[in-house]
Amino acid sequence: MKKPWAGRFRGRTSASMDSFTESISFDNRLWKHDIKGSIAHAKMLGKQKIISRKDSDAIVKGLTEIAEEINTGKFRFRQDLEDIHMNIETALIKKIGPAGEKLHTARSRNDQVSLDFRLYLKEETKEIISTIESLQKTVLKISERHLDTIMPGYTHLQRAQPVLLSHHLLAYVEMLQRDKERFHGSINRLDILPLGSCAISGTTLPVDRAYIARLLGFKSISSNSIDTVSDRDFAIEFLSCASITVMHLARFAEELVLWSTEEFGFIEISDEFTTGSSIMPQKKNPDAAELIRGKTGRIYGNLLSLLTIMKGLPLSYNRDMQEDKLPVFDTSDTLKSCLRILIEMLPKIKFHAKRMLAAAGESFSVATDITEYLVKKGIPFRKAHEITGKIVLYCIDKNLNLQSLTLRKLKTFSPYILEDIFSILDPAKSVKARTSYGGTSKSEVIRQIKKYKKILK
Amino acid sequence: MKKPWAGRFRGRTSASMDSFTESISFDNRLWKHDIKGSIAHAKMLGKQKIISRKDSDAIVKGLTEIAEEINTGKFRFRQDLEDIHMNIETALIKKIGPAGEKLHTARSRNDQVSLDFRLYLKEETKEIISTIESLQKTVLKISERHLDTIMPGYTHLQRAQPVLLSHHLLAYVEMLQRDKERFHGSINRLDILPLGSCAISGTTLPVDRAYIARLLGFKSISSNSIDTVSDRDFAIEFLSCASITVMHLARFAEELVLWSTEEFGFIEISDEFTTGSSIMPQKKNPDAAELIRGKTGRIYGNLLSLLTIMKGLPLSYNRDMQEDKLPVFDTSDTLKSCLRILIEMLPKIKFHAKRMLAAAGESFSVATDITEYLVKKGIPFRKAHEITGKIVLYCIDKNLNLQSLTLRKLKTFSPYILEDIFSILDPAKSVKARTSYGGTSKSEVIRQIKKYKKILK
Amino acid sequence: MKKPWAGRFRGRTSASMDSFTESISFDNRLWKHDIKGSIAHAKMLGKQKIISRKDSDAIVKGLTEIAEEINTGKFRFRQDLEDIHMNIETALIKKIGPAGEKLHTARSRNDQVSLDFRLYLKEETKEIISTIESLQKTVLKISERHLDTIMPGYTHLQRAQPVLLSHHLLAYVEMLQRDKERFHGSINRLDILPLGSCAISGTTLPVDRAYIARLLGFKSISSNSIDTVSDRDFAIEFLSCASITVMHLARFAEELVLWSTEEFGFIEISDEFTTGSSIMPQKKNPDAAELIRGKTGRIYGNLLSLLTIMKGLPLSYNRDMQEDKLPVFDTSDTLKSCLRILIEMLPKIKFHAKRMLAAAGESFSVATDITEYLVKKGIPFRKAHEITGKIVLYCIDKNLNLQSLTLRKLKTFSPYILEDIFSILDPAKSVKARTSYGGTSKSEVIRQIKKYKKILK
Amino acid sequence: MKKPWAGRFRGRTSASMDSFTESISFDNRLWKHDIKGSIAHAKMLGKQKIISRKDSDAIVKGLTEIAEEINTGKFRFRQDLEDIHMNIETALIKKIGPAGEKLHTARSRNDQVSLDFRLYLKEETKEIISTIESLQKTVLKISERHLDTIMPGYTHLQRAQPVLLSHHLLAYVEMLQRDKERFHGSINRLDILPLGSCAISGTTLPVDRAYIARLLGFKSISSNSIDTVSDRDFAIEFLSCASITVMHLARFAEELVLWSTEEFGFIEISDEFTTGSSIMPQKKNPDAAELIRGKTGRIYGNLLSLLTIMKGLPLSYNRDMQEDKLPVFDTSDTLKSCLRILIEMLPKIKFHAKRMLAAAGESFSVATDITEYLVKKGIPFRKAHEITGKIVLYCIDKNLNLQSLTLRKLKTFSPYILEDIFSILDPAKSVKARTSYGGTSKSEVIRQIKKYKKILK
Repeated sequence: MKKPWAGRFRGRTSASMDSFTESISFDNRLWKHDIKGSIAHAKMLGKQKIISRKDSDAIVKGLTEIAEEINTGKFRFRQDLEDIHMNIETALIKKIGPAGEKLHTARSRNDQVSLDFRLYLKEETKEIISTIESLQKTVLKISERHLDTIMPGYTHLQRAQPVLLSHHLLAYVEMLQRDKERFHGSINRLDILPLGSCAISGTTLPVDRAYIARLLGFKSISSNSIDTVSDRDFAIEFLSCASITVMHLARFAEELVLWSTEEFGFIEISDEFTTGSSIMPQKKNPDAAELIRGKTGRIYGNLLSLLTIMKGLPLSYNRDMQEDKLPVFDTSDTLKSCLRILIEMLPKIKFHAKRMLAAAGESFSVATDITEYLVKKGIPFRKAHEITGKIVLYCIDKNLNLQSLTLRKLKTFSPYILEDIFSILDPAKSVKARTSYGGTSKSEVIRQIKKYKKILK
Repeated sequence: MKKPWAGRFRGRTSASMDSFTESISFDNRLWKHDIKGSIAHAKMLGKQKIISRKDSDAIVKGLTEIAEEINTGKFRFRQDLEDIHMNIETALIKKIGPAGEKLHTARSRNDQVSLDFRLYLKEETKEIISTIESLQKTVLKISERHLDTIMPGYTHLQRAQPVLLSHHLLAYVEMLQRDKERFHGSINRLDILPLGSCAISGTTLPVDRAYIARLLGFKSISSNSIDTVSDRDFAIEFLSCASITVMHLARFAEELVLWSTEEFGFIEISDEFTTGSSIMPQKKNPDAAELIRGKTGRIYGNLLSLLTIMKGLPLSYNRDMQEDKLPVFDTSDTLKSCLRILIEMLPKIKFHAKRMLAAAGESFSVATDITEYLVKKGIPFRKAHEITGKIVLYCIDKNLNLQSLTLRKLKTFSPYILEDIFSILDPAKSVKARTSYGGTSKSEVIRQIKKYKKILK
Repeated sequence: MKKPWAGRFRGRTSASMDSFTESISFDNRLWKHDIKGSIAHAKMLGKQKIISRKDSDAIVKGLTEIAEEINTGKFRFRQDLEDIHMNIETALIKKIGPAGEKLHTARSRNDQVSLDFRLYLKEETKEIISTIESLQKTVLKISERHLDTIMPGYTHLQRAQPVLLSHHLLAYVEMLQRDKERFHGSINRLDILPLGSCAISGTTLPVDRAYIARLLGFKSISSNSIDTVSDRDFAIEFLSCASITVMHLARFAEELVLWSTEEFGFIEISDEFTTGSSIMPQKKNPDAAELIRGKTGRIYGNLLSLLTIMKGLPLSYNRDMQEDKLPVFDTSDTLKSCLRILIEMLPKIKFHAKRMLAAAGESFSVATDITEYLVKKGIPFRKAHEITGKIVLYCIDKNLNLQSLTLRKLKTFSPYILEDIFSILDPAKSVKARTSYGGTSKSEVIRQIKKYKKILK
Repeated sequence: MKKPWAGRFRGRTSASMDSFTESISFDNRLWKHDIKGSIAHAKMLGKQKIISRKDSDAIVKGLTEIAEEINTGKFRFRQDLEDIHMNIETALIKKIGPAGEKLHTARSRNDQVSLDFRLYLKEETKEIISTIESLQKTVLKISERHLDTIMPGYTHLQRAQPVLLSHHLLAYVEMLQRDKERFHGSINRLDILPLGSCAISGTTLPVDRAYIARLLGFKSISSNSIDTVSDRDFAIEFLSCASITVMHLARFAEELVLWSTEEFGFIEISDEFTTGSSIMPQKKNPDAAELIRGKTGRIYGNLLSLLTIMKGLPLSYNRDMQEDKLPVFDTSDTLKSCLRILIEMLPKIKFHAKRMLAAAGESFSVATDITEYLVKKGIPFRKAHEITGKIVLYCIDKNLNLQSLTLRKLKTFSPYILEDIFSILDPAKSVKARTSYGGTSKSEVIRQIKKYKKILK
């Protein structure tokens, strides 16, 4: 089929060229946004009398029918028509005749594709924000159920201090809150109408860009036509936000993998979200968690891909930029699927509270409490730290735990140690006493939960 | 020297271990922030009576003296003291004795390093925003001087339509505006006090975090201690913002390189910002522009470095996170130097307006104007596009330009073409007529300039 | 459908889990390799009497039929059967009954997927090597036709010295030669049979791995079962090789874009490999070249993706590793399509030799020849460089070219300049005189061409 | 100071430009290679009578003295002299006068920097190969000591089957062997003399490149001058090799972190390679392992940095390429330090063999042995797998382990189970029976060890 831009050409593009440059195999998913944008454009052309009202109406009607055809699977996308824009325009012309040839007045694919992509990304970003919110709610609900579950808090993956499982889980609610904030912020740079920038320099025709923006619900209008057709910042920013979010999910996934090892034994993931081995009959693997962790690579790769594409491109539009879509589509799909699988999987995880508590009680994780005990008695922190270190070392040598030391023995390390020391050598006491703002005491954790219940309502 | 945490250890770290794990060789640049944070912390400890007012005062005085020593180059940083925190604390204890051993009460290096890093990054981010603003002003000033300079606008690096040089330059002002917005947004997630989260779970001591936040000028306080010591989002977000910004600079740099080729001949960069060849005596190379383009790789690499580091780390603090600093330091330094060299270099660039105008007049770049001319006469856009294509093809075959065609000849392509066609076959007319919002007409460009003069005041 | 590993499970995987973890939607393209591997495995099981010869034959026959079904589009892949392995095994059992249940004896999906992937990548690597070779031949042929075409050689994109177009094009033949070498080298680490490593530790059954290796044409057998199922080096190395190769193609593409600008005007790409604009009727864009440049981002992204996935994974197999396939498939497809489009496009490019020669003659690009002329007269190089610099500066000031200076004038710069200077002020002479090994003289270029004709025969 | 290329310039470079473009702050580490290369070049110039023998001798003497000055710290590098090449040439001219001005005859910084960088990288690559070899020897030695230590082999971080600790450790020896192979292969593309390519096109002077290659020990000579000055493949390939190597180290590091958790308890890292906490007195953290894992991000970042830099650069040399050095220097330093810290740390790790064995005996990790037992009795594998799955599920429900089931009970799952089943329900037996090539049986592991003792001798 002859290309709509073929006037100046004598030769045809080769078949291999058609298949190398086509984007219809992936940008067809933008059909809704393309038609929505074209309808608004046609209405504006009619309102401004750039085309007749009759032609404008015919275009709107024709596009509406095409939308219906695509929706019901009756539309056939053609690779030789390059992209979604040309596929739809060609179908329109075939359907309504010369009026269809007027649709592309005062626009170019350069501003059109930016419009479609922005409409798509606004939708996706909002959906992602709301899915993140669902995940926050899921985690919050689990946190509420574990206000008395004590586990070891880790630094360097070594047991550090006892914490509430709730407190640990709420850390993810915080991360996800920042993720939402970032996505929200990105909308400011996304919610801008590009249409009307045309190929690069605007148009001599009396378009009304504000009208289109109103019809399509854009907050503002791009103010430099050259920048508009050159810009893919919004897509890179989307990929950046997604990269940080999936990194958080990967950290969570890593913990689910660790916690479901026989060694940790903190959780059991339900049969619905684990798989077996083709050879080892006893295996029950945390595949979903592993895949989330693995998909981080995929999203990082997509970010790098678009950054690389845009590096050093002179203004304005260059065809390289067509490679922007796949990484964004793939990222959005991947991120949503990771979020959703967590939303389903988490509520069915069984937490082994006893095992967690036991682990929190071992390994001297209340040592810091002894130090702070000594500090309260007036010993300089560094000294108190050293004294406690000596006590721990003594225990290791004698293969004892802190709780089994006698007061007499303890006093050999510092005369400031009194009977009341024993009241702190207990993970539960340790947790309860950490009432500093943001600390792990139950009172503080309840405060955090209340805050988020309000935020997420 | 004995490590401050050595109480529980029997062996010493090996020399190779000291050198492998040390960070003092690069985190020493955080000394100001470390001391500033420690002073605020000591004041809080005193106010809360966790330590005596006397000790608190002694610490503040000691730290102030150490700051002075570092500032005047009298302080010796020691690798075996690991990092900036331990270097300063050790010096303090040496200087003021046991009172110094109390400074680290109710904090950990985990929250301390986050504090230092956030203080540093707030400063840097603000400096970068203001440097971007300077670059915007520089570009704006040049734009104002070129309201009548016409150049070819490019798509696919092929001449597309004539545009004002001002309009083209203002595209960069737009990009930089978004860059500032992103950096601004990132401050929301940066301007949060981490101190008081301690190692992971808060503290049993009666700290007043809000007081420290006030002393240090933080807008809010982190609300989950585990998240706080696990979080490097703020650093990744900084690197993301910087990556997009430097990508913009790289596009600008690419254009400077292109424009200063003999083939384009649009600009001449002054001797101050070019270098010669060690072998070819005639060479004058746009090295600064090339290096900006090259440094994009460096900043992208830094972003990917930190994303990789954080991937799949279980909570909370892990030592891997120490590798966060170099990429951030390097990125901030690099980005600022790229911005600054542009600020200096751009005003001294000589634009060859005649050559630009000549280029804009060749190559059929007013073809779109003919199409829109025909559209105004009532011809459907697609048809008008095809007619113009045929005219162009005819010119190519006959080696003519559009301006030299006779009306008679033109009429053979379409009877709608009249005498008035000649009034549009001129780049200046073409530019003038593009009055759509954001278009390249002088009136529109002046509007853009006014807007930015207001914004940047 | 019940999973083949479901013995130990009570619950079923959820539908969302099935769709999150499935790989059949992309690993189905490994069907040939999977069946080929299974046939060899079954033969070995029969030969070793681990299963009966009859069962072995039945399996081979069944698998052959399944291959035929897939090949003719009659096979239906099922998502709930997870992957290509389980799809085929299930079909086999359905087809031949209990004998089919014996196929998976003494193997695991862990070694099976490594086998399939290696078989696939060996094929792809060889195909890529041969496609690179075709591209080399294409470039070589064009080089042969341009042994007298002189163009400016560039450094910093500034004209540096005249060179032969052939010489410039042969630079790409060199790069591609290195690319082939790297891919060749990677085969050493690819051509190793993994099968027989089973899940992680080998098997208690009397397998004959060497026999399978012979049947499948592997050069060697993996020697540590744990390493074997943990290893994806071969895939990363493939992506590294592809990244360097596509970087070379991107440099070539960049030059095609530059050369086809109106400003350079060195080439015209044929209509078959350019496209037009939807709005600007005169446009003819080098889209294929731009897309090749853009696809670099895609392949770099894929490399980063897999590097990220493998970072910090404990041994041995982890499900994250399933994410290895898409980046590799996409890279191989993308790289081959970039190579092929170049192979088709290049021979149809028209080189404008006159324009190139003219450009080579301008801009003082023979200045280095003057310097070397002076050196031959005994002037120290640095001095000669300075003298030539002064001559160039004089010409710039007076708006002259080197060729138009009088001998008298030239002598004012150095008395060593004699009449014979004029014989070198010509790009053709400059080129001819660069007879150093690897230099741009015709004789040297012919030597290079001969070398490659031999290599590529 | 006046630049050596300043003849054609009227203005001076600005101070900010000097500091933006300088490389002496990091390329000064190439001084040895630069001087070595210059000495060879000067000898060639003398031999070829391009300069007099006397001048040649004076240059060699002067350079030798400069080397001595640098070596003893008496040489002052100057930023305004841009780079190592100009620093040394300028010092030479100052030292020996006009003869020094002849050194740069028939070369350019473009081929000179490639020479220096290649000389450096050849050295580094060899040093890295030999350091990898040391690490292999270290691991091999530990493996030899643990031929009877049984641990759980993991897939999905779930216990899969018992394996020998030796076998597990030898997996790393395999990976490192591939790493060496890759580095070795890269030398083929590194060990090529670039000098004599000059700026871009060779020279008109009668140089003898083969002679220089012999003097400097290069295996071959680059054959296309344009490619030579455009090429940084060798640096990217180095970074690729390093990325895969550090990925392996990161996996090892991850395991050291896991194994030293209280939960796993498989190893204890000595005090020399762990650090404590500034606040928690009991902590002993595996910092070296964590940092190795973290440094992976750094090396990946460096790889992507250089890939980005080279993307889409037109031929030949562009100043962007100056940004190649820092990522390579940093990578080489980082990789060597990671390798060395492992070489020191590993021999001092204490393995808790009892704990490992106990873990291997739990969790049904001999289930696969039951399946293979049934297969040997003639039951189809899939059936045998299912039966074993049922047995495991029964044990889980009853909270039993496999070893405590009665024969009678076992027979209810399959009549094929006989008394001899009990002889396989033991990790040691399981390990011993895996005699397939590359399997975990002691005999196989000893074979592997012997192989490597031979390879590494």
